[in-house]
Amino acid sequence: MIQHVAVIGAGSFGTSLANVLAGKGCQVDLYARRQDQADEINQEHTNNRYLPDVSLHEGICASADIAHVVRDKKWVLIVTPSSVFRETLRMMRPHLDPDVRIAHATKGFDLDTGQRMTQVMEEVLTGIDPGRFAVISGPSHAEEVSRHIPTTVVAASRSQRTAEGFQELMMTPYFRVYTNPDVIGTEIGGALKNIIALGAGICDGLGYGDNTKAALMTRGLTEIVRLGVSLGASQMTLSGLAGVGDLIATCTSLHSRNYRAGFALGQGKSLEEVLDQMGMVVEGVRATKAAHKIALEKGVEMPITSAIYNLLFEGTPPRTAVEELMGRRRIHEMEEVAEAVSLTWES
Amino acid sequence: MIQHVAVIGAGSFGTSLANVLAGKGCQVDLYARRQDQADEINQEHTNNRYLPDVSLHEGICASADIAHVVRDKKWVLIVTPSSVFRETLRMMRPHLDPDVRIAHATKGFDLDTGQRMTQVMEEVLTGIDPGRFAVISGPSHAEEVSRHIPTTVVAASRSQRTAEGFQELMMTPYFRVYTNPDVIGTEIGGALKNIIALGAGICDGLGYGDNTKAALMTRGLTEIVRLGVSLGASQMTLSGLAGVGDLIATCTSLHSRNYRAGFALGQGKSLEEVLDQMGMVVEGVRATKAAHKIALEKGVEMPITSAIYNLLFEGTPPRTAVEELMGRRRIHEMEEVAEAVSLTWES
Repeated sequence: MIQHVAVIGAGSFGTSLANVLAGKGCQVDLYARRQDQADEINQEHTNNRYLPDVSLHEGICASADIAHVVRDKKWVLIVTPSSVFRETLRMMRPHLDPDVRIAHATKGFDLDTGQRMTQVMEEVLTGIDPGRFAVISGPSHAEEVSRHIPTTVVAASRSQRTAEGFQELMMTPYFRVYTNPDVIGTEIGGALKNIIALGAGICDGLGYGDNTKAALMTRGLTEIVRLGVSLGASQMTLSGLAGVGDLIATCTSLHSRNYRAGFALGQGKSLEEVLDQMGMVVEGVRATKAAHKIALEKGVEMPITSAIYNLLFEGTPPRTAVEELMGRRRIHEMEEVAEAVSLTWES
Repeated sequence: MIQHVAVIGAGSFGTSLANVLAGKGCQVDLYARRQDQADEINQEHTNNRYLPDVSLHEGICASADIAHVVRDKKWVLIVTPSSVFRETLRMMRPHLDPDVRIAHATKGFDLDTGQRMTQVMEEVLTGIDPGRFAVISGPSHAEEVSRHIPTTVVAASRSQRTAEGFQELMMTPYFRVYTNPDVIGTEIGGALKNIIALGAGICDGLGYGDNTKAALMTRGLTEIVRLGVSLGASQMTLSGLAGVGDLIATCTSLHSRNYRAGFALGQGKSLEEVLDQMGMVVEGVRATKAAHKIALEKGVEMPITSAIYNLLFEGTPPRTAVEELMGRRRIHEMEEVAEAVSLTWES
């Protein structure tokens, strides 16, 4: 049976997921916000601004009419920036099939409310059972997915049937999908790793080394776990593909926009300059603002997020921010760890 | 008070630790196995084979006479390859001060017995309280330590006094030492990450991408935790600097010999060719053999270690080994995780 799938958002990852699905025989409608982008995808089978040097599957049907794209679809994948997520749901809502299953692959928080994306879905898409919602996340640079580089992701849903549905829908020999019931952990891992990737980029941009970056990423993972667990995530998920896996892929790859933005900041560029030059959304900047606020509300210590917040929004110079982090008066490693530990000295 | 320290082993890391200590005013005697190397260090203040382009502190006194180096020392740091660890202890033993504290920074297992290095110390150095033993580990490429790149390591001992002693001895503004009571976890993390670094190198050598490598490292961490916990390690330690931190530094840096050896294997070179070309010890090869044996004895599943064992010692082609790993019939991510999980589907 041929599956009909709507992919909402023709950025790098949305386009590459549309390409995966079309390549395995799905009929894919892809929503692009701009008509000229939809035309380019339909006529040239390229998306040069977001996914250069890739020939797209000719079966992908792009459109700037979101009602047309989602109508009668049983499977919808939302891959928009977090900044337009709520608005996009509102546009889709009147046209959705009541039997639809919807996954998102958006890595961030709703800035005004601090909500995760599936929380926004529950709020906006009233009348659809939240068991039909899922999140797709993991170490999956779009550029590599489109070149059929072996990639693994997590499909998380509170409903096993939904998670397994997306697994079956999307799985190919080079794109492997693992199911997970922990929606919270999967969303938190994807959102917070972009903050640490900014930090890793800053570290490299300042000329520090691999030792320094590995220490920063380790501490970063600790604070992702700390905030995640306080919000109901499983530590297991954050130790898996959607946590440490995505953290590694994002902090160590030149494909990562967040890493590249951090690198430019470390070299002394201003936030405005950096965002202008990227020409694409840098989710880590918004995520820093959101996580900083959530951490304050929850009373969770997040020194790296806090240092990056000060650098982005309070004018702290990058070197000062990193030196403060490295010089922290923590001498017993276990103090860094989220949960109570039973480790004690013998003598 | 000026501390007198013996550093045993003038390889890359031993030499860089000697340099850290001499730089902070310790009187450092450095044991080199070859007289010409000791002469080079004393006369030229360089160690070109193991730490090229670094000017060593002129206060370091190198010697090929191990008895002279350890005599009357209250602090000894052992930084030899695991293959000569036991023999080196035997040579030192008659000359050790009874009040000595000894740390090692050797990342591997004793191949014949599968013992950790502090277990070998307990066996050979009878008469010295094991509370005086410690291990130094963490993300710390020697090349970067010698350039004063900010670096963090763990000093683990079953005795708080010993751990804090080494912390105080070695800490500088750019070399930060965190204490930890979990000797087992600290040693296991350092030994096993070299296996995964071989795998990461193989992956890159075959031309796979950052998505693939991040997945491999995530699974690698899972199996490090699985074996580690079965041997008495704390999962906390393996989530810290000596676990995930060192794993990241080793799998993603060109400074890592294990990564570079894996890369050459991935490109189709034979193990013999690779080891010949490196000219330095590749601990991951021995660690693979040791861990494979321990995992079999303990009944612990280690698919990556097993695939690398087959590649190194059974002639499995690299691509087959990686494809087998990627294609494993695991579809629920949590199956990968060591402990029992309370995560369940709602519906």
